[in-house]
Amino acid sequence: MDRTTAKKAGLSPHRLEALADGIFAIAMTLLVLELRVPEATGPGDLASRLGALWPRFATFFISFIVLGVYWFAHHQTFYFIVRVNRTLVWLSILYFLGAALIPFVASLLGSYPEDPVALSLYGVVLALLAVVGYVIWWYVTGDRGLIDQKLDPDLVRKVRHWIAAGPMVIPVAIVLAFVQPILTLLIYLVLPAVFVLFNPVDSYLERFRQGAR
Amino acid sequence: MDRTTAKKAGLSPHRLEALADGIFAIAMTLLVLELRVPEATGPGDLASRLGALWPRFATFFISFIVLGVYWFAHHQTFYFIVRVNRTLVWLSILYFLGAALIPFVASLLGSYPEDPVALSLYGVVLALLAVVGYVIWWYVTGDRGLIDQKLDPDLVRKVRHWIAAGPMVIPVAIVLAFVQPILTLLIYLVLPAVFVLFNPVDSYLERFRQGAR
Amino acid sequence: MDRTTAKKAGLSPHRLEALADGIFAIAMTLLVLELRVPEATGPGDLASRLGALWPRFATFFISFIVLGVYWFAHHQTFYFIVRVNRTLVWLSILYFLGAALIPFVASLLGSYPEDPVALSLYGVVLALLAVVGYVIWWYVTGDRGLIDQKLDPDLVRKVRHWIAAGPMVIPVAIVLAFVQPILTLLIYLVLPAVFVLFNPVDSYLERFRQGAR
Amino acid sequence: MDRTTAKKAGLSPHRLEALADGIFAIAMTLLVLELRVPEATGPGDLASRLGALWPRFATFFISFIVLGVYWFAHHQTFYFIVRVNRTLVWLSILYFLGAALIPFVASLLGSYPEDPVALSLYGVVLALLAVVGYVIWWYVTGDRGLIDQKLDPDLVRKVRHWIAAGPMVIPVAIVLAFVQPILTLLIYLVLPAVFVLFNPVDSYLERFRQGAR
Repeated sequence: MDRTTAKKAGLSPHRLEALADGIFAIAMTLLVLELRVPEATGPGDLASRLGALWPRFATFFISFIVLGVYWFAHHQTFYFIVRVNRTLVWLSILYFLGAALIPFVASLLGSYPEDPVALSLYGVVLALLAVVGYVIWWYVTGDRGLIDQKLDPDLVRKVRHWIAAGPMVIPVAIVLAFVQPILTLLIYLVLPAVFVLFNPVDSYLERFRQGAR
Repeated sequence: MDRTTAKKAGLSPHRLEALADGIFAIAMTLLVLELRVPEATGPGDLASRLGALWPRFATFFISFIVLGVYWFAHHQTFYFIVRVNRTLVWLSILYFLGAALIPFVASLLGSYPEDPVALSLYGVVLALLAVVGYVIWWYVTGDRGLIDQKLDPDLVRKVRHWIAAGPMVIPVAIVLAFVQPILTLLIYLVLPAVFVLFNPVDSYLERFRQGAR
Repeated sequence: MDRTTAKKAGLSPHRLEALADGIFAIAMTLLVLELRVPEATGPGDLASRLGALWPRFATFFISFIVLGVYWFAHHQTFYFIVRVNRTLVWLSILYFLGAALIPFVASLLGSYPEDPVALSLYGVVLALLAVVGYVIWWYVTGDRGLIDQKLDPDLVRKVRHWIAAGPMVIPVAIVLAFVQPILTLLIYLVLPAVFVLFNPVDSYLERFRQGAR
Repeated sequence: MDRTTAKKAGLSPHRLEALADGIFAIAMTLLVLELRVPEATGPGDLASRLGALWPRFATFFISFIVLGVYWFAHHQTFYFIVRVNRTLVWLSILYFLGAALIPFVASLLGSYPEDPVALSLYGVVLALLAVVGYVIWWYVTGDRGLIDQKLDPDLVRKVRHWIAAGPMVIPVAIVLAFVQPILTLLIYLVLPAVFVLFNPVDSYLERFRQGAR
């Protein structure tokens, strides 16, 4: 898109995407700072001390995938966006704030993997991301000229239902943290896997591409 | 813009924008390093120790929004810029230096939320960003061929008045830090909110877009 | 590529490249955090204490080059890619996870340069990157419409053999860590050097360019 | 440049520029981690303890500008580059390695501002950047088809002389560190200032632009 047509369309989404890519890349990489090198007195000792860090490794892995899921969701949403306005910028910055908090709640969960407070705070940040993600999709698909007009209304509805899963399931996980912590952990593990494996936008694009041939 | 026309126009703004996006993304994400996981002996204990960290959470939140405001201001300014020269590069790097200092003064304020020295140093960095932002706008809108010539002189003047608010209000906040610290905190809280909610550039673009239909 | 044709082709690779560049840039720069300033009592003392840090400097240097090699491999692969799908996104995120782990295993190796556990864990992360890199090349060069169709099948095969070197050699290095640690270190040193000095993609591009004149 | 012509020309410089922007943005922002919040018992105490940190603030400021100078030099060089090859990629990664080391030597200098070892190591990293920068310019302006052919041979020579200043002056500063440390500090202060204020590429572009009107 050249600058002149961009101007007619309001701010182009390019720099908001660049900020998103930067913030997600940094949040994903900062997670590694939680994997601290242990003090050890010898090889056998080092192995067992690293083994004792397994909750941190598990939290690192889950959080990396979680951030990947939310980055991909942002990528797919912005794929259809043709211009941004002030409200969308600030909704996105709120979304980035959630992403930037993940290294903190991951560190908390890695330090206190069985503590309901740590478990539920992790869920609160996931819920923030899920709710803001839902609001962003609802906002951009409204009649505001922000999104590609050829976008299939069916897909819009399907994605809205799909991304409602997060805001509905995560509060359950937060409550369960105080009753059955292991179920909360399970939800945190399964939820991103579901998003990785099933994703209506991707198959829509796939069909779109085949139709275009 | 292709490389040939860019060459005629001097350095293109693309890479300065990329550096800006990188530095703001990192500064925003580094803020999270100040939210340190507390030492706790049990769930109840963890909750109360996290609660005691509220000044750090508040500073994190405000600083994230503040950086968002200054990033957005940079984005909107560069939206109209067609080429950059050496002076603009160095004014921008000074602006980025202010952004890079925010995690430090945020950490200081989160550690000593009632200390007038911490409160005023936070204001000094905000003032640096505000003043350099003002100078950048004044510089690029002068007759230097750096900015889109179709830019409405009315908007140029309006934005200049608007961004003068920072350099005028922040010194007041710095002085108040030594007299009524609570008022300083209030200004730091309200100022970004005003910038988030009211913003003459965005409504100008909105009108521009509607006129172009 | 303009947005319309991109849409026909599925998600464009642009943002995945941006995430890659961000994650590699951060992982490469975070390595420096392992070079901690020592406590010293005077100039002569500082020199000798810095000298004692040589395993950290060596690990920093090797890891920087290793990340450079894997970044360059990603860059060259994506050079031929015309669209991305969900599988490729998640393979890439797994690749980035390996890159993000390098600062941790580098820190481990810098702290315990002679420990077979530290040496082998470094190799495990290298192997993860090498295997995922191999799978990515195999996946994108299959009949999935992800890659430039004019790509020479000879090059495809040549690169596949070439990048099989990592997954074959690194397991040997991991085993040797428990027998002859010095050989493991040697492999970690020589392997990136080989990739820096010999690289079939680059000479192919060179020939391609000369043919196009 | 579209993908087809890029392919004819070898790897496009775009992603190397993105990696550069990322690494410089991170190195510049990581400098702030050296400004550690001091422990203080009251407001007066906080002020004096911050005052005692002045060598760290000075090193932060100088290093931020130094990284800005080297980023700008890379930006200006790559402005003329039309394609990259393997050698240029690895020369650039060596250049980035120097940039990534700046936060470490800055931290060293901020901790031991009068120590000749700290002073000279800072110079060694500056010299690495300066020498690699010189080699890059020499390499790309050779007859390798990497650079815009319309580039004025006069400018090529002028820039080569200009950037030889670093490799010639910095070794003097390194030696002086052991004799007259204050002169070394002075050189570290003056050298970036000279590059900020005088810069033959920028005035060339300026003239180029005026001629093109």
